[in-house]
Amino acid sequence: MSHDSLLESFTAGRRAALSRAITIVENERAGFRDVLAALHSRLGRAHRIGITGPPGAGKSTLTAALIEHYRQHDERVGVIAVDPTSPFTGGALLGDRIRMNEISLDAGVFIRSMATRGSLGGLALATKEVADVMDAYGFDRVIVETVGVGQSELDIASAADSTVVVLVPESGDAIQAMKAGLMEAADLFVINKSDRPGADRLAREVSMMLHLRSGNVMRNVPAHHGVNLAAVKAGSAARRSVPDSVNVNAPSPVESVPSWEIPVLKTIAETRAGVTELAQSLDSHRSWLTATGELSRRRRKRITERVRDEVARRLQRVVWEEQGGAALLEESLHALEDGSTTPYEVAARIAERILPAQGTTPG
Amino acid sequence: MSHDSLLESFTAGRRAALSRAITIVENERAGFRDVLAALHSRLGRAHRIGITGPPGAGKSTLTAALIEHYRQHDERVGVIAVDPTSPFTGGALLGDRIRMNEISLDAGVFIRSMATRGSLGGLALATKEVADVMDAYGFDRVIVETVGVGQSELDIASAADSTVVVLVPESGDAIQAMKAGLMEAADLFVINKSDRPGADRLAREVSMMLHLRSGNVMRNVPAHHGVNLAAVKAGSAARRSVPDSVNVNAPSPVESVPSWEIPVLKTIAETRAGVTELAQSLDSHRSWLTATGELSRRRRKRITERVRDEVARRLQRVVWEEQGGAALLEESLHALEDGSTTPYEVAARIAERILPAQGTTPG
Repeated sequence: MSHDSLLESFTAGRRAALSRAITIVENERAGFRDVLAALHSRLGRAHRIGITGPPGAGKSTLTAALIEHYRQHDERVGVIAVDPTSPFTGGALLGDRIRMNEISLDAGVFIRSMATRGSLGGLALATKEVADVMDAYGFDRVIVETVGVGQSELDIASAADSTVVVLVPESGDAIQAMKAGLMEAADLFVINKSDRPGADRLAREVSMMLHLRSGNVMRNVPAHHGVNLAAVKAGSAARRSVPDSVNVNAPSPVESVPSWEIPVLKTIAETRAGVTELAQSLDSHRSWLTATGELSRRRRKRITERVRDEVARRLQRVVWEEQGGAALLEESLHALEDGSTTPYEVAARIAERILPAQGTTPG
Repeated sequence: MSHDSLLESFTAGRRAALSRAITIVENERAGFRDVLAALHSRLGRAHRIGITGPPGAGKSTLTAALIEHYRQHDERVGVIAVDPTSPFTGGALLGDRIRMNEISLDAGVFIRSMATRGSLGGLALATKEVADVMDAYGFDRVIVETVGVGQSELDIASAADSTVVVLVPESGDAIQAMKAGLMEAADLFVINKSDRPGADRLAREVSMMLHLRSGNVMRNVPAHHGVNLAAVKAGSAARRSVPDSVNVNAPSPVESVPSWEIPVLKTIAETRAGVTELAQSLDSHRSWLTATGELSRRRRKRITERVRDEVARRLQRVVWEEQGGAALLEESLHALEDGSTTPYEVAARIAERILPAQGTTPG
């Protein structure tokens, strides 16, 4: 199938074309850039939701619960599971797997599990590009579920419009969770398995830490942003966007901007308890993003990062593959090991294959 | 101070010169490559130990316990804490901090905490380079402690000769831990806080999973490696390197190679229980690495990665800073946002600043 006819089928909403386009993009097959470029103008409709948190927090079950919720409201959902052992690909307990199977038979749901590749940097980029494909296809929500609490995993989640950090009472005290940078990434906190002992304490701790950190009523909003407060208040779903403690009628020395007050929600994903509230809170967040201009800012940041990632990918390919960098490195291994050259000399010589020669580097 | 006199002081073992060299390297100050290149021939003496695991596992306390152990044996220890909230920089409970202060007053110990920077990729590279500086300075052990269980954090830990993965009964069941890729990274498992309920169960689970995974007696040894089994058996510290279940005297169809049987140790870092055994096990691992040639293989891999990282760093700097890529991106933002161009077109134009023009890319 040519790319033109692929794009035609894709635009017509054929599921096989979606699947094919994702495969091309995920594996960087020939022409993947053309596919992505062709879809670029169709981006921005989907609400991108990142779900992250430590292992065992119940992220997949929560994702399944959200899918069910959105399907009941006739929304179409794309899911990217960045975890080879996710229940979405069979690496789960039997009960879960049956539920996942049901979900995956639903034509309004499309699930793609992305295996970890050599470099997580590459995976992060591919994940964002697959999310683009799903967005362009017309899903109302695109959910990216990442395992782990590491920086790269958070980066993936943060490429979403709304990032949900899921914790459980067992995942260690809140202070430890904060350590891992979750605090910076979260737009919403969820305490899952909230019927277990310690849930209330964890919720209180997280709330307290969020509060302590906020001498920052302005936190999520860049200082230079003009905001139409009336528009925010008029938005039906913007209930949460004006914190109680801010008197919006008081005169203020600087322009007053409604901040997003990060909620700490409780769920029991297994029984679906709290899932409706989570979905409502996600909608509130999205309204806040739109009303404050934060959505544009995040998408601008995302587009900037995409250009940077793509430049890096191009340069790496040229220098290592086309210009023989890999071969030169191979030849230099002995000299590197016996210390007669250094990684910095070899790297300079490889980079010179494409860079204009510089005065300081030895011939 | 010129770099020459810095290197002279460094070689003479002056602590101020070590500190200065680390700062230059960590912050990529002018001439940092010269410093690293000058030290390259002095690398390879230190035993590099990575300590990783989920938040709250007691990694810092375990690191402190190892430092004390090594100091009692007159070994000098360098520590890199990749965590801005580590007790090593004051972000700890009072008791811990006092202990850390004592350690840090010891002239045989040098501790550097590395804050997380914008990109963890950059942090990972800087961490390895700081470890090089410590190695070149003459530390017997260089310990890198990383928070989190994400891929990038594991990458940092895996740059060590020996990687210790620390778990606690509270950190969720073993299956979840395995999910996060810890299994692949670990040379040794430690169940810390092993006096708590669930420790024995966790230890059993981890052992069982390690066992299940091994139809791979050969696991850590590349197939093409010739190994002198006698040398291994002669090594005093190589006790652990021949698993009980392998009859080394039996004739074997393929060349038999002693694998490293990943131990699952129990510690209570607070009370130092099990720390001597951990240190012994680390020595066994190092002997195994040396005897089997695995050490050379890991160092070759490390040197290869260093060249790749350095090439990427050079290219990025040239294209974004020297060749005006950043300005071009800035100028293109509007067109990117209104969809009249795509990230892929802009990236191609930026990459062209240094790449030989290609037939397929538009002017």
